[in-house]
Amino acid sequence: MTTVAQLVGAPPAEPPYDIVRAAYAELQVTDLDASEVFYAGLLGMVVSARTDDAVYLRGWEERLHHSLVVRRAPVAAAARLGFRVRREEHIDLLAADLAARGLRTALSDSADPGLGRVLSAWDPFGYPLEFFHHMEQHETQLQRFDLHRGAPILRFDHVNLHVPRPEEAFAFWSGLGFRCSEYISTDGDDERLTGVWLLRKPSVHDVALTAGRGPRLHHTAFWVGEPAGIVRACDQLAAAGHATAIERGPGRHGVSNAFFVYLRDPDGHRIELYSCDYYTGDPDLRPLRWSVNDVRCRSFWGTKAPDSWYDESSLVLGPDGAPVGLRDAGVDERAQRSEVLA
Amino acid sequence: MTTVAQLVGAPPAEPPYDIVRAAYAELQVTDLDASEVFYAGLLGMVVSARTDDAVYLRGWEERLHHSLVVRRAPVAAAARLGFRVRREEHIDLLAADLAARGLRTALSDSADPGLGRVLSAWDPFGYPLEFFHHMEQHETQLQRFDLHRGAPILRFDHVNLHVPRPEEAFAFWSGLGFRCSEYISTDGDDERLTGVWLLRKPSVHDVALTAGRGPRLHHTAFWVGEPAGIVRACDQLAAAGHATAIERGPGRHGVSNAFFVYLRDPDGHRIELYSCDYYTGDPDLRPLRWSVNDVRCRSFWGTKAPDSWYDESSLVLGPDGAPVGLRDAGVDERAQRSEVLA
Amino acid sequence: MTTVAQLVGAPPAEPPYDIVRAAYAELQVTDLDASEVFYAGLLGMVVSARTDDAVYLRGWEERLHHSLVVRRAPVAAAARLGFRVRREEHIDLLAADLAARGLRTALSDSADPGLGRVLSAWDPFGYPLEFFHHMEQHETQLQRFDLHRGAPILRFDHVNLHVPRPEEAFAFWSGLGFRCSEYISTDGDDERLTGVWLLRKPSVHDVALTAGRGPRLHHTAFWVGEPAGIVRACDQLAAAGHATAIERGPGRHGVSNAFFVYLRDPDGHRIELYSCDYYTGDPDLRPLRWSVNDVRCRSFWGTKAPDSWYDESSLVLGPDGAPVGLRDAGVDERAQRSEVLA
Amino acid sequence: MTTVAQLVGAPPAEPPYDIVRAAYAELQVTDLDASEVFYAGLLGMVVSARTDDAVYLRGWEERLHHSLVVRRAPVAAAARLGFRVRREEHIDLLAADLAARGLRTALSDSADPGLGRVLSAWDPFGYPLEFFHHMEQHETQLQRFDLHRGAPILRFDHVNLHVPRPEEAFAFWSGLGFRCSEYISTDGDDERLTGVWLLRKPSVHDVALTAGRGPRLHHTAFWVGEPAGIVRACDQLAAAGHATAIERGPGRHGVSNAFFVYLRDPDGHRIELYSCDYYTGDPDLRPLRWSVNDVRCRSFWGTKAPDSWYDESSLVLGPDGAPVGLRDAGVDERAQRSEVLA
Repeated sequence: MTTVAQLVGAPPAEPPYDIVRAAYAELQVTDLDASEVFYAGLLGMVVSARTDDAVYLRGWEERLHHSLVVRRAPVAAAARLGFRVRREEHIDLLAADLAARGLRTALSDSADPGLGRVLSAWDPFGYPLEFFHHMEQHETQLQRFDLHRGAPILRFDHVNLHVPRPEEAFAFWSGLGFRCSEYISTDGDDERLTGVWLLRKPSVHDVALTAGRGPRLHHTAFWVGEPAGIVRACDQLAAAGHATAIERGPGRHGVSNAFFVYLRDPDGHRIELYSCDYYTGDPDLRPLRWSVNDVRCRSFWGTKAPDSWYDESSLVLGPDGAPVGLRDAGVDERAQRSEVLA
Repeated sequence: MTTVAQLVGAPPAEPPYDIVRAAYAELQVTDLDASEVFYAGLLGMVVSARTDDAVYLRGWEERLHHSLVVRRAPVAAAARLGFRVRREEHIDLLAADLAARGLRTALSDSADPGLGRVLSAWDPFGYPLEFFHHMEQHETQLQRFDLHRGAPILRFDHVNLHVPRPEEAFAFWSGLGFRCSEYISTDGDDERLTGVWLLRKPSVHDVALTAGRGPRLHHTAFWVGEPAGIVRACDQLAAAGHATAIERGPGRHGVSNAFFVYLRDPDGHRIELYSCDYYTGDPDLRPLRWSVNDVRCRSFWGTKAPDSWYDESSLVLGPDGAPVGLRDAGVDERAQRSEVLA
Repeated sequence: MTTVAQLVGAPPAEPPYDIVRAAYAELQVTDLDASEVFYAGLLGMVVSARTDDAVYLRGWEERLHHSLVVRRAPVAAAARLGFRVRREEHIDLLAADLAARGLRTALSDSADPGLGRVLSAWDPFGYPLEFFHHMEQHETQLQRFDLHRGAPILRFDHVNLHVPRPEEAFAFWSGLGFRCSEYISTDGDDERLTGVWLLRKPSVHDVALTAGRGPRLHHTAFWVGEPAGIVRACDQLAAAGHATAIERGPGRHGVSNAFFVYLRDPDGHRIELYSCDYYTGDPDLRPLRWSVNDVRCRSFWGTKAPDSWYDESSLVLGPDGAPVGLRDAGVDERAQRSEVLA
Repeated sequence: MTTVAQLVGAPPAEPPYDIVRAAYAELQVTDLDASEVFYAGLLGMVVSARTDDAVYLRGWEERLHHSLVVRRAPVAAAARLGFRVRREEHIDLLAADLAARGLRTALSDSADPGLGRVLSAWDPFGYPLEFFHHMEQHETQLQRFDLHRGAPILRFDHVNLHVPRPEEAFAFWSGLGFRCSEYISTDGDDERLTGVWLLRKPSVHDVALTAGRGPRLHHTAFWVGEPAGIVRACDQLAAAGHATAIERGPGRHGVSNAFFVYLRDPDGHRIELYSCDYYTGDPDLRPLRWSVNDVRCRSFWGTKAPDSWYDESSLVLGPDGAPVGLRDAGVDERAQRSEVLA
C-alpha cells in the first residue's frame, strides 16, 4: 500500500503538455455592483472590461487581460478555474489526455473579452477547469504607484479546493505534472492527508487541496508584495465599514510561510491576500510534512482558525450549469488535533 | 447627575505636583529564570541589573535604569506600578495630597538598584503605586541596531487596570491630573463606562481602566517602533516554540489606533507590544467616544477578543504583601454587545 | 567662557508662559495651483479651506484647522512659523516678554480661517514667528484609511532654520523654554555648533538650527507613521512624474534616529517626511553630542548630503513683507569634515 | 541589420538542456576572516561549511549546500559563477554544445563540499562559468525567525556582469535559452544596449549585462523578503561601524521594480540585497524598454548612482587562474544622458 509520504514524494508525471500556472477564476455573484465595489473599489483591482453581466479584473502587475471574472447569476458559485498552457497546441494534447481518462471536455473559442481558444473540462471530482494559451496583453501597472489602491493586489497566485479525499485528488493533479511542496497529515498508523499543496510555477502552489465537504472552491488567492500591504488592506476595509469581510488573520501560515488574510466577498466567496512564500523551482524539491497536531501548521502563531474557514466554501458548477452535489470528507483536521494543543 | 460625557470631558485637576508618565512595573514571578528567558531572551529586552531575587530590564531606547522588574516570589502578582514625577519635591507634595485623601502612603529610599527615594501608596481600590523622581541613567541603545533582538521593545508605554467600577477609578486618576483621550461606553439611558484611557505624557495613555473583576493589572505595555516589529516578535516567539505565549492579535485597535499584540509571560502576566498611537499634547484635546456596540472599538478589524483577555489578569499586592481581594465588575463589555455583531 | 557643552546642557528658562509646540508654517508660493497639486494631490494632505489667495492644509491625524498654509505671492518665501501656547493669556505674557527684549511684536485677530488671536513677532535674527492658542477643531481622519493618500502625512512635526550663528540663536530659544536633545559640533579647541535640536513637545525637536547663510527656513517637517510610508511617498512621486522633487534620502538620520526623505515643492521650499524619533519628555534629558567628523551624524548610513541641502533654503519675510537680508555662516559643516571620511 | 528591439525580442533558443537558474558565486578574498565577519556576522548568512581556505554560505531559505563561496587568495577576484541544470545528463549536453562553439570546457567531480560533478567553461568573453546538477540538501531555515540575523538574506538571486559589448554577450546567453525581461538602450538612430536583464527562473533575471569595462563581475545579488529588511541591514551595518560598506541606496530600481541596496565587501566585491521584483514565467513575456535618458531607469526616484558603481567591478579568473584582461566598453550610460536630466 502506498503511504502518504510515497504518494506526495513521487515525482509528478511528465505529460507532453506544459501547464504553466493557475491563472484565473470565474465567480458567479448575485449582485454584480456589490462585487465590483468589493474587488475594484475596496481591494483596488484594475477593471479590464465590463460586459452586460460580468466584470473582468486583474492585478497591478499583471499584463494578461484578466485574472478574475465576476459574473451576475442567480446563485453564488465558482464557475471556472483557469490554467495557462505554454503553447497553443498544448490545449489539444491536454484535451486528448483528459478525454482518454474519460473526462468530459469541450474545445471552443471563448466568449470572454481578451481570451482565445479554451478547453473546458470537469475533473473526476466535479471541478470546472479551463485551459487556455492565448490572452490579450495590457501594459503592466506595477509601477503606477500613484494609482495603486488597496493592498495592492499584484497578481493571481493560486486556488484552494475543498475535497472529500485529498489522496485521490492529489493523484489527479500529479498526473497533470503538478509537484508537491508541502502537506499536512495525521499522525499514527492510518496516516491521512488533510491538506496538500501542488505547484507548476516555482512558488509554493498553484492548487491546494483541503480535506472537507466538496467539491467546492475553498478560496482564490492573490499575491500582495509585502505584509504591510495586507495590514493596509484590513485597515482600509474596516475604515470603509467592511470589517466583517475579514474572516481570518492577518497571520503567518506555517505551511508556505505566507503572511496572509482571508476575506469574504459580498457573496461569501473567500479571497486570500497572500505574500512571502518561497522559491520551489529546483528539480529535487522535497515535500515538507507538517503533523496536523503541530499547532503551527495552519497558523504559525498558533491562532485557531474559525469554524467558518473549515466549513464554508463556494459551490462549483457542473456541465449543466448547476452546482455539483457534495460529499462529506473522510477526515476533519479539527478532530485530529490533540487536546493538549487545542 | 454627572453623565459619562461630563465625567470624561471635565478638565483634569491641576495639582501642585507633575506626574510625568507611567514608568515601570514590578511583576512577581514564580520562576525567575523562565522570566528572564522570556523578557530578555525571547522579547530581547536589555538587562540592566540582576540581584539574588530579581532581574531589572529596560527597552532599547530607554536611558533610565529599568522599566520592568521581575522578582521571584511564591505567587505571581503585580507588586508595584511606578510613575515618575518632574521634581524631587513633587514626591512630598504628592505624599501630602494622598495622605489627605486618607490613603496609605510611605516614603523610603528604594532598595532597587538605580532608583532613588520613592513614595509607596495604595489607591482607594487597592492598586500598589510607586512614585519617584530620581533614577540612574544609562546610554541609550536606540541605534545599536546590530544588537537589537526581538521586536525590539523600545520603551515602557502604559499599564491597563482591571477595575470593577471605571467611573470611580477615573475620578481618582483625573484628580492626579490625568486627562482622558478615549473611552468606550454602553448605549442607552444608563450609560456606563467599560473602558477609559488616561494620559500624562502626550500619547493616548499612561493608564487605562478596563471594566472587570479587580483590582487586577490587566497588562503592561511596551512601545515598538512599527507594525513590522510586532509581526517579527510573533514570528520569533513561534519559531522558538512559544507560539502559545501569543494570546490576541496582532491587530489594530480602534481605540488608540495602535497596532498591537498581547502576550502572556510564563506566569500568565499579560504584556502588550504597542505601536502607532498619536499625539495628544494639545490643551484642548477632546475625548473620543466609542460605543461598546461598535465592532471596531477594541479590534478595528472586528476580530473578537478571546474570553481569556476579558477574564484573566494579574493579582495586585496590598500593603501586607498579599494579593488584594477582588470584587466583580458591574458591567461586562461582552454582554453589552448586540447579538447582530457578535 | 561658556563651552558648547555648557550652553546646550544648561536647563532651559522657565518663563511664565508655556509654548506647547511648533504648529504650522505659512509658505508664499508663486503658483498656488501647482502647490495644491503637490501638497494635496501628490503628498495627500487634507484641504481644510481655500481662500482667494491661499490653501489651508492639515495632516490626517490633526484636529486643528491647519498646519500648513500656502499663499500666492510674487516671491517664494516663508511668511510665518506658528507656535501654540497652552492658554490664551500666555499670548499676552509672551508678548510682554518679547517686547521687553526689544523685539518687534503685534497682537491681532488673525484673518486666517479657523485661527483666533495671534502674536506676531520677529526674533533677533529676523525669523517671523506667530504664537496662538485658539484654533478651530476638526474630527481626526487618522482612521480613515480608506481615504488616505500619499505617505500619508499624519501631523506637523518641526521647523529647521538656517542660522549664521547657532550659538546665538540657541540662547534665544532656550530663553523661551526650549530644551536641547542633540547637537553636532566641531572637534578641537574652538568647538563650534553646526546643528542643534530643541524641543517643547516630548519628541526630538520642534525647532532645529542648522549653521548656514540666514535667516532662512531650511525645511518644514511632517510626521509619517513608519518608514514604509516614506518609501511609498517616493514611489508615488516618481510614478506621477515628480521624481525630481526628491532631494535627499530616504535614509536614516544619526541625530534623532529619524527615517526621512527631503522633498522640494514647486517653489523649492524643502519638506521633510519624518518618522521614528524617540520620547524626550523626562526632566533629566541630557543632550547627545555628535562630532561633525562622525560620518553617521547627518546620515546614519554615511550617505553624503547633496550640496543643495546645505546651500539652498527659503527666504523669510520681515515686518515689511520683504525678504530679510542674509548673513553668511561662520562655520561650514562640510569644510570641517576630515578628508579621511569624505 | 538587427535592431536592439529585434535582438532582445527574439525568442531564446530551446537547447536540449535546461539551465534552471543562477545558483552560486565563488569570490576570491584576501582576508578570509574579514569576509566571514562580513557575510556571516554582519549580513547574517548561514555557514554550511568551512575548509582551510574557504567558507561556504547560504541564505535562510536555501536547502542547497551553498550559494556563496569565499576563498582565500592573493588577489580579489570572481572565480566562478554557478548555474544549476535540471538533470545530471544536461551537464554533458551542455558540455558538448559549448565545445562545439569552440569554448574551453572541463568536466570534473567538484572538490567543494556538498557539490557533485561540474562542467567548467569560459564563455567567449572570459567569464568563468560552472554548471552542476547535484548538490547536497540541508533543511530550510526559512522559519527559524528566532535565529535570523541581518536582512535576512533568503536566497541567491542573480549575477550582473560588466561587459564591453552587451549585444554580443546577449546573443551568447540567449543561445543558452535565457529570455530578456527588460533592457536600457540609447535613443536615436544608432541605438545601443547599455543594460539588459536575462532570466531562466521566472523572476526578472538570473544574469544581467551592464555596459562597462570587462569582463568583470559587477555584482552578486541575494533576495531579501521585503524593503524593511534592506533598511534593517543598513541600520545594522552602520551600527556595527560598517557604514562605508553601503555604496548605493537603499532605493527602488526602475528596471525590475526591485527595492535594493548595494554593498561592498571587505575586498570591494559588490553585493546587492534585492527584493520586490515580479513574475516573468509566462511564455509571451515581452521585454520592457527603458530609455537611457529616463532618469528613473536605474533609480526610480531619480537618485544618481555614484561613479564607483559604474567604474568598479570584480576581476574574473581565466583558465590559468589569473585575472582576465580587460577591454573598454563602447558606450557609457552616463555620457548618453541628456544634460537636462543630469
